[in-house]
Amino acid sequence: MNTVAIFGVGLIGGSFALALRKAGFSGRIVGVSSPGTIRRALELGVIDEGRAARDAAAEADLIYLSQPILQIADSLAELNGWVRPEALITDAGSTKTLIADRAATAISRCQFLGGHPMAGRERRGVEAAEAHLFQGRPYVLTPRSEAALHTPLAREFANWIRRIGACAIILSPEEHDRIVAFTSHLPQLVSTALAAMLADRTEPKSGVFGPALADSTRLALSSFDIWGDILASNKDPIREALRHYIATLQEFSKVLETQSMRNHFESGARFAGQLREPH
Amino acid sequence: MNTVAIFGVGLIGGSFALALRKAGFSGRIVGVSSPGTIRRALELGVIDEGRAARDAAAEADLIYLSQPILQIADSLAELNGWVRPEALITDAGSTKTLIADRAATAISRCQFLGGHPMAGRERRGVEAAEAHLFQGRPYVLTPRSEAALHTPLAREFANWIRRIGACAIILSPEEHDRIVAFTSHLPQLVSTALAAMLADRTEPKSGVFGPALADSTRLALSSFDIWGDILASNKDPIREALRHYIATLQEFSKVLETQSMRNHFESGARFAGQLREPH
Repeated sequence: MNTVAIFGVGLIGGSFALALRKAGFSGRIVGVSSPGTIRRALELGVIDEGRAARDAAAEADLIYLSQPILQIADSLAELNGWVRPEALITDAGSTKTLIADRAATAISRCQFLGGHPMAGRERRGVEAAEAHLFQGRPYVLTPRSEAALHTPLAREFANWIRRIGACAIILSPEEHDRIVAFTSHLPQLVSTALAAMLADRTEPKSGVFGPALADSTRLALSSFDIWGDILASNKDPIREALRHYIATLQEFSKVLETQSMRNHFESGARFAGQLREPH
Repeated sequence: MNTVAIFGVGLIGGSFALALRKAGFSGRIVGVSSPGTIRRALELGVIDEGRAARDAAAEADLIYLSQPILQIADSLAELNGWVRPEALITDAGSTKTLIADRAATAISRCQFLGGHPMAGRERRGVEAAEAHLFQGRPYVLTPRSEAALHTPLAREFANWIRRIGACAIILSPEEHDRIVAFTSHLPQLVSTALAAMLADRTEPKSGVFGPALADSTRLALSSFDIWGDILASNKDPIREALRHYIATLQEFSKVLETQSMRNHFESGARFAGQLREPH
């Protein structure tokens, strides 16, 4: 793997470039992004050069699509005409089924292997990129078939994932999307719903709240520019997660003053505690 | 005000003692708590001495009840026979209606003025007490009548609240409870419900989640030992808050893939941003 092309040099793409470099990658890293982002990425030493999409695709051994989900889908539609047959295309989109479906129809001239690094920060953009962003974090790979993992290209890519400190997890695109609906998309909606509901009410205007309110509305600061695509491309699993969550809240309302609430609190506290244990 | 008696020398009671001292209080601070807590509070220099409840009550100019809510109610039932007529009894309970009702029937020999400092930490107990816990935080006072604020005792207490850096806010007990159902009790249940629901499911066991999940289950670490009393003593306002929140989630589920979600996200992000602005 000599040339890596990062499509979308933002937080994730920029961090992947920095992480590769730190892990010993000595080839060339080219970026495909808006002129302003390319300029910042060059200043920050995140990429070696900026290129047009077609030129980058024609040269790259690894094409890393770290754009918003629907842009990744659009990139896939174009790439097949440009890529080298020895290239691997991967992506870092937050939902995988739509992208895997698109790749299955659009990419025939080289291998595609989807992925999702479960890392993030509150800040976005190449300025927020960090070489250690993926360290100790899950990095899901979502092959449509077991065989897709055992090609030399896939093995080499999986090796780089380990070398940047991430923990590779293998799931089908559909399993991935069902899981993250519960572990990632639901927590986002839980926070946004709380903030959006309180935005319309008078109670918070009294100033009567403690640090817990800021805590529970922190995720609500996230931008719809990212979340719009996620919600639209994973709606059935998210609706199922919402259904289960709403049922839990309805149960809480019913038993609010009873000792059943002790069980719910203890079970929740145990779960929250286990999440915080080192793996 | 020469002698202050803190009933329940935990995070709040201990912090109030430390804050008073730091703000220049030169009188005596006595603690009423379990023998173990009194020992730690003396070692940490939080109180000057430990006393039995009856003795502390008989000597104090200010009686500060910082126990769990139902224990505060029990203390009120006993205190009337012990207090000096020149004393002020206040409390730091997280719900105010039940306590105000109890005080109205139980306390006749001195003044009672309820309160709720909106401060907290993840850690509990006297070890976690901090002199600056109340700094810049709302401290709600909940008189049953306007006149109760204008007694010399109430004025002196309100002055100390300002001197420890808190922002006094005046509300009726009922207004307080309705507001905190939305701004404090709902955020707690939102987090506990998420954690309790996920505790029973397989998705998180995959290890596929990002930092957002830990973030949104942090409040779920809270102990039912504190929350049981809060839920039981504020059930109608909390049920109303849950009703509004569930309706918002149901609306989200309905419009999940549409552009309406942009409005919800933007309104939520604006609210969350405003919460973080310095006052």
